[in-house]
Amino acid sequence: MIDLYTWGTPNGHKAAIMLEEVGADYRVKPVDISKDEQFAPDFLRISPNNKIPAIVDHDADGGPLSVFESGAILVYLADKFGQLLPASGPGRYKALEWLFWQVGGLGPMLGQLAFFANRAPDKLPPAISRFTDESIRLLGVMDKRLGEAAFLAGDDYSVADIACYHWALVSREGLRDALADMPDRPNLNRWLDAVGARPAVQKGMKIPN
Amino acid sequence: MIDLYTWGTPNGHKAAIMLEEVGADYRVKPVDISKDEQFAPDFLRISPNNKIPAIVDHDADGGPLSVFESGAILVYLADKFGQLLPASGPGRYKALEWLFWQVGGLGPMLGQLAFFANRAPDKLPPAISRFTDESIRLLGVMDKRLGEAAFLAGDDYSVADIACYHWALVSREGLRDALADMPDRPNLNRWLDAVGARPAVQKGMKIPN
Ligand SMILES: N[C@@H](CCC(=O)N[C@@H](CS)C(=O)NCC(=O)O)C(=O)O
Ligand SMILES: N[C@@H](CCC(=O)N[C@@H](CS)C(=O)NCC(=O)O)C(=O)O
Repeated sequence: MIDLYTWGTPNGHKAAIMLEEVGADYRVKPVDISKDEQFAPDFLRISPNNKIPAIVDHDADGGPLSVFESGAILVYLADKFGQLLPASGPGRYKALEWLFWQVGGLGPMLGQLAFFANRAPDKLPPAISRFTDESIRLLGVMDKRLGEAAFLAGDDYSVADIACYHWALVSREGLRDALADMPDRPNLNRWLDAVGARPAVQKGMKIPN
Repeated sequence: MIDLYTWGTPNGHKAAIMLEEVGADYRVKPVDISKDEQFAPDFLRISPNNKIPAIVDHDADGGPLSVFESGAILVYLADKFGQLLPASGPGRYKALEWLFWQVGGLGPMLGQLAFFANRAPDKLPPAISRFTDESIRLLGVMDKRLGEAAFLAGDDYSVADIACYHWALVSREGLRDALADMPDRPNLNRWLDAVGARPAVQKGMKIPN
């Protein structure tokens, strides 16, 4: 049994989609970050950076294992279940490239844009345009890649697509106005529709509601 | 032979330190990002996100393999050389947790602080304090972890320490003034001195100069 500590956000959904994709036996432990539940001492023992998602695998080799950081969770589950990330060879590293790209680029930059454009009490035009430009650039890199291959790592759907899905979707939803100047992204849109049609993605996107 | 495309920055140094640690046979291909060399078409074929570092391993299984994103490069080299990241078990995922934490948190947030506090043409106090607070928090998370264990993943030095080293050092150097209000970080300082004393770290930090 795997416990999933999560909330209904793009980072939380990565772990939920992955658990659905691999068919894991898991239970959801909601951590309401709007009520600061991520600072509870019991949760900090699992996730010392006070962020969701985190998992505890009670059946890990060698005893219960906790894992925080969505990227590490995706790799852990892929290795455990032998799915969505090749065990070796070039395909493994193509998927890891785009997984790290999401964690270090797409996620933090769209996250900062959401803050400065939508939530910040002071509107700071230079900060908004910095993160708008960078988000448009990143989504352009993704669109270009998806013009060369069906999925981010190549022919096969992988952990990299799972990591990017909800973040890229935000560009058509919550960040639509902030990104109004973005050119059309046809390859990204085709991929968003294909990934969004997967049953595991649809189920994962509803967790923990 | 491995080609390392890099420049003398915290992300570039991660790959250079790793190549030194594992004793790889490599040659340096400088990409001067102050001259926009990261936008050259030949480099974009290797690193489509126009960022250093990237590598090409001419002796990879199955033919030459390029890898971009410092985190993916660290995992690739650790797997290839069988060093600095256990092949399986809890130790592997403890190192991956902190590696992803650096790529998604410490790197982007200290990077934004360096921009808004030191380089931005307009000084925006709310943006500076946002990234100052987050950087102080992240360095606190790291200090707490290094009070529990010698290294980020536990008893052993790993790819996670390599990823964090130059970024954490920036808190004592280029970001010292911006972080003047940070409480003392004794465990972080002990770790910075220990990691900085390693010959491979000292060599890697000088690449590509
Ligand atoms: N790099 C982390 C980011 C996780 C993250 O930002 N989680 C947010 C929700 S999407 C959170 O828990 N925020 C609460 C807080 O920071 O206090 C990951 O990929 O897991
Ligand atoms: N997440 C990336 C970040 C790499 C990165 O930010 N590289 C910077 C130098 S430290 C760069 O090449 N900047 C040039 C540009 O963005 O045009 C990684 O870890 O490799």
